Amino acid sequence: MEEMKKACFGVRTDLALEERERFPGDGGEVAGVKLREWEKEKAGLRLTEVVITNEKGARSMGKPVGTYLTLEAPGLAKKDEDYHKEVVGELSAQLKLLFGRHGIGTKEGKAPSVLVVGLGNMEATPDSLGPRVLENLQMTRQLTFEYGEDFCAEHGYPVLSGITPGVMAQTGMETAEIIRGIVKETQPQAVLAVDALAARSVHRLGVTIQLSDTGIHPGSGVGNHRNSLTEETLGAPVFALGVPTVVGAAAIVHDTVGAMIEVLKREKATAGFGESIDNMQPEEQYELIRELLEPQFGPMYVTPHNIDEQVRMLSFLISEAIHGALFL
Amino acid sequence: MEEMKKACFGVRTDLALEERERFPGDGGEVAGVKLREWEKEKAGLRLTEVVITNEKGARSMGKPVGTYLTLEAPGLAKKDEDYHKEVVGELSAQLKLLFGRHGIGTKEGKAPSVLVVGLGNMEATPDSLGPRVLENLQMTRQLTFEYGEDFCAEHGYPVLSGITPGVMAQTGMETAEIIRGIVKETQPQAVLAVDALAARSVHRLGVTIQLSDTGIHPGSGVGNHRNSLTEETLGAPVFALGVPTVVGAAAIVHDTVGAMIEVLKREKATAGFGESIDNMQPEEQYELIRELLEPQFGPMYVTPHNIDEQVRMLSFLISEAIHGALFL
Amino acid sequence: MEEMKKACFGVRTDLALEERERFPGDGGEVAGVKLREWEKEKAGLRLTEVVITNEKGARSMGKPVGTYLTLEAPGLAKKDEDYHKEVVGELSAQLKLLFGRHGIGTKEGKAPSVLVVGLGNMEATPDSLGPRVLENLQMTRQLTFEYGEDFCAEHGYPVLSGITPGVMAQTGMETAEIIRGIVKETQPQAVLAVDALAARSVHRLGVTIQLSDTGIHPGSGVGNHRNSLTEETLGAPVFALGVPTVVGAAAIVHDTVGAMIEVLKREKATAGFGESIDNMQPEEQYELIRELLEPQFGPMYVTPHNIDEQVRMLSFLISEAIHGALFL
Amino acid sequence: MEEMKKACFGVRTDLALEERERFPGDGGEVAGVKLREWEKEKAGLRLTEVVITNEKGARSMGKPVGTYLTLEAPGLAKKDEDYHKEVVGELSAQLKLLFGRHGIGTKEGKAPSVLVVGLGNMEATPDSLGPRVLENLQMTRQLTFEYGEDFCAEHGYPVLSGITPGVMAQTGMETAEIIRGIVKETQPQAVLAVDALAARSVHRLGVTIQLSDTGIHPGSGVGNHRNSLTEETLGAPVFALGVPTVVGAAAIVHDTVGAMIEVLKREKATAGFGESIDNMQPEEQYELIRELLEPQFGPMYVTPHNIDEQVRMLSFLISEAIHGALFL
Repeated sequence: MEEMKKACFGVRTDLALEERERFPGDGGEVAGVKLREWEKEKAGLRLTEVVITNEKGARSMGKPVGTYLTLEAPGLAKKDEDYHKEVVGELSAQLKLLFGRHGIGTKEGKAPSVLVVGLGNMEATPDSLGPRVLENLQMTRQLTFEYGEDFCAEHGYPVLSGITPGVMAQTGMETAEIIRGIVKETQPQAVLAVDALAARSVHRLGVTIQLSDTGIHPGSGVGNHRNSLTEETLGAPVFALGVPTVVGAAAIVHDTVGAMIEVLKREKATAGFGESIDNMQPEEQYELIRELLEPQFGPMYVTPHNIDEQVRMLSFLISEAIHGALFL
Repeated sequence: MEEMKKACFGVRTDLALEERERFPGDGGEVAGVKLREWEKEKAGLRLTEVVITNEKGARSMGKPVGTYLTLEAPGLAKKDEDYHKEVVGELSAQLKLLFGRHGIGTKEGKAPSVLVVGLGNMEATPDSLGPRVLENLQMTRQLTFEYGEDFCAEHGYPVLSGITPGVMAQTGMETAEIIRGIVKETQPQAVLAVDALAARSVHRLGVTIQLSDTGIHPGSGVGNHRNSLTEETLGAPVFALGVPTVVGAAAIVHDTVGAMIEVLKREKATAGFGESIDNMQPEEQYELIRELLEPQFGPMYVTPHNIDEQVRMLSFLISEAIHGALFL
Repeated sequence: MEEMKKACFGVRTDLALEERERFPGDGGEVAGVKLREWEKEKAGLRLTEVVITNEKGARSMGKPVGTYLTLEAPGLAKKDEDYHKEVVGELSAQLKLLFGRHGIGTKEGKAPSVLVVGLGNMEATPDSLGPRVLENLQMTRQLTFEYGEDFCAEHGYPVLSGITPGVMAQTGMETAEIIRGIVKETQPQAVLAVDALAARSVHRLGVTIQLSDTGIHPGSGVGNHRNSLTEETLGAPVFALGVPTVVGAAAIVHDTVGAMIEVLKREKATAGFGESIDNMQPEEQYELIRELLEPQFGPMYVTPHNIDEQVRMLSFLISEAIHGALFL
Repeated sequence: MEEMKKACFGVRTDLALEERERFPGDGGEVAGVKLREWEKEKAGLRLTEVVITNEKGARSMGKPVGTYLTLEAPGLAKKDEDYHKEVVGELSAQLKLLFGRHGIGTKEGKAPSVLVVGLGNMEATPDSLGPRVLENLQMTRQLTFEYGEDFCAEHGYPVLSGITPGVMAQTGMETAEIIRGIVKETQPQAVLAVDALAARSVHRLGVTIQLSDTGIHPGSGVGNHRNSLTEETLGAPVFALGVPTVVGAAAIVHDTVGAMIEVLKREKATAGFGESIDNMQPEEQYELIRELLEPQFGPMYVTPHNIDEQVRMLSFLISEAIHGALFL
């Protein structure tokens, strides 16, 4: 939610999974996009990997070439410590795999050096996921100042550093400026950006975790690349780990209207509704909704009533998974 | 938002102003309800007083007998210190008037004793208004321990005390239990409950302040009175000061659909929409929307993207107004 | 540290253990005071139980009749998860024993009902232990509203409630007033007050946990009992769990001077020092030090540089121990 | 207090004023050090300017060449709004003067660009001054992204940006690394570092503000310059604004012992004390005290009991003074 403002305008989603669902035919092929799904039934987890293999796929999906892994864990809504451990274990394993594929990992007495960036705003509960994960992480890079370069490798630690840059209203700076400066100075092998995301569906809020190796793209693909957090702009590969915590208010209205149409069509008395509204293009419908939600007040977002507890729990879970992926 | 959960379900509003607007004919009469509106044009403020005079009015409005004063200050959305001072001044004066009408005020060397209650949840940004106001208040009751009963009166101070009780998930107790106990022990003349509210319209968020002398009624009028904060349950008159910071997600969908109907009716191609949906009762429509928003995930709320800044500013403004109303 | 101000003036300690050490002859007898010490060598823990059996003992110790158990865990200074688990286990067991001795515990389908009070000030790091423990506790009493009285007993839960009352400058009320009111309304079987303590020795900071069944006595024994949290003032037995996080600045100077004297006496060149200062009574010495520290600025306290990390860790540890003692 | 740990060891002070006082003869000359003192009696303020003009002075003072301005405002300990305004006005004027002397200021339609750095640790109350000042600042640099380079100059705004880097345990990075990176990316004309300081005397805590144009030197002068925040290491002039909030525990013991000696010498019965301890060198005395305070527990600091209120008030005051110095 680095750019919550942008995320809230638009029927946008930060989840590649939801983007993929827009295409007709559930199992259908989209050129340049590979889909793989599997379940860990016993654990109650479902994984989906969307790989965008070329520019054609990138254009269709409105997201850059790369791998997007989604872990759906519906049980996260409940307080079940054993289940949380399952999720930590799986997330940790997937994160390790993704790092490994890019050559980030412990080998030959060399510790992987990673800068974790906690994107978002500590002061706005649904946007505080990134900063809260950072609070729970155990940094280690400072140990190399005192005990030398090899200390971390010898102990099976990564060389871990981290920063909570804050949002533009608090800093007067683009997050990309801050992180670029820090990356140049401290030369980590990789950046891991943790962020709260915007989803399309309230079903995904708090129970879906997305991992990707494509960085962070505020305003997704539209024009301005200067503010992206990518290997191109930062000089180190950028991994992203996010959980949706909000749905744009316009999106929720749009979707609910869509669902209403389906219901109304089935009923004889209201069948006319579906037909007449179907004459409008989705874009027109959405534009109408946005106008009605009066953007002069700025974008609005929808979030669960217990978002504070959810974000707190998720921040522990994610920090443990990061530890699990990087510490031996 | 003491009971944000309840507030989010239902097309409910905490604003008497919005409740009154449901009735046809803007200037029309509602039995048992008196309406008075005036503007402070120069200051850019609009005041509305809704007085519910009897049980008939209470039933129509779904709110208890009493006075509800609303101060609309659209300019609050902007950072303008002079305007903020105007609002503080007006709110302070209205609060003083309301207190005065109930005999709460400085007289004959006697300082008014008021317990301010900061309702809500510090951890959930839109619900943190009450706790944040408390952080900014200057308590004085403790001075009487050291310097005697008359100290406050002599200095033109009120005997001010305050508490942030937390929400039920944090305390395991009803707020009413906590406050009732404290009122019995400390015997204030009045309780002033500060709370974030739920509105119907996003236009009201952050720019409307409601004052009332009727206490706090979670779940408004429906059955359970044990958890209300009222003179009846607490043993001291209860004033409420609130600002809407959220709209229930179901409410926003419902209203936007209503607005869509109006637009679609006007267009020939989609006129059928309005007609068919008009066949549904508002309650049916709303029920449908709620089902579609899937309450198994619990209620959702809609809030502005910059709610953290708004709540911060409002908490300063309200604490200054309380100081202004009670300190000489 | 409910009354940090008072704690900081005076060579006072909140630890019965340290009070006991003032008496000459380590194993010596003090009338009305029973001492029992044992070690859990494997676990690296040392336990000391001081039982004050009568008023004579109470006068000698300056603390009320009752049991004071101290758990010394020097390893807490290090980050060692296994050791932390040992401490949680032992603390949990001791807390359960102490509760049991007062008839607080699960029996015959009846769940124990406990109100936990987080004393102290969230805004002052060394005094934030109580509020932080409360943040980590899982309340259950609210479940009885929805699912009935027996729900907790059936699930092996206690009926747990909790409050963070804040300090007098924030509330204008004595903590005792607030808690007395809440106890009367909610009728718990017992109150457990969690608080940061003042010690005499910096060696104890962050590594000593004291449990007692005698309540909380700000200003210990001197006159004013109105503000104590005891069975007498609250109407329910009051257990206290505390960890020292500060040493009064005057105390630390006093002790260091004492230690200096010992060192100087041993050296020939400075032997005169010890003799001359030994002519002063300890009370005179202390009074002199307090004057020199210039109380017009108010009391000062001494605290470790990493107190934020210590308090954070301790608050997790204590909340887990409370869970362990009360949940089946 | 960027390096609170180092500050707490040693009889160190961050105040040039206190360093200067070490030299005998109040008005006496120290080679390479110029002293100027004046009072604003009506306002109740005292200003002291220490200018270290050459390397000789730097060696004597243990601080780099440059200007150190100290504003002593004893009345800050009380809540007096008018006095606070006086202090804001004076601090603002002095800050403007200091900036002006280095060519930082509005001129010819060019707005000064300043990066404010909030040093310290939000989680440790006495060390949270820097982060709290940042919370209260109004950033403007982001306006230039949307409205162009000239926008700020046209409106009389500075181009203000800011960052709260956190402490090494939280980030794994040296503060200097983080700031150097950000300065290189964003090219401010100047850096203003706001920090809590360590003083020698408890009299200075919370009532003394030091301004300097020499940057921040953790561990002052001793070896390691890599971690300094100076023009040399950052590439932009570094101004520092600090308020002492702690005294090292060893320092307070040392000073109190010194004061005790003076008192004891005057009394006949204890005159031997002064003589014998006078045989020890101050360094020996101090070393002894440090050993006795048992550094295996790490450094300890002394801070006032109401430090949370002091830091809160000071953070508002300083942010207003920065606004006053930079906004027209």
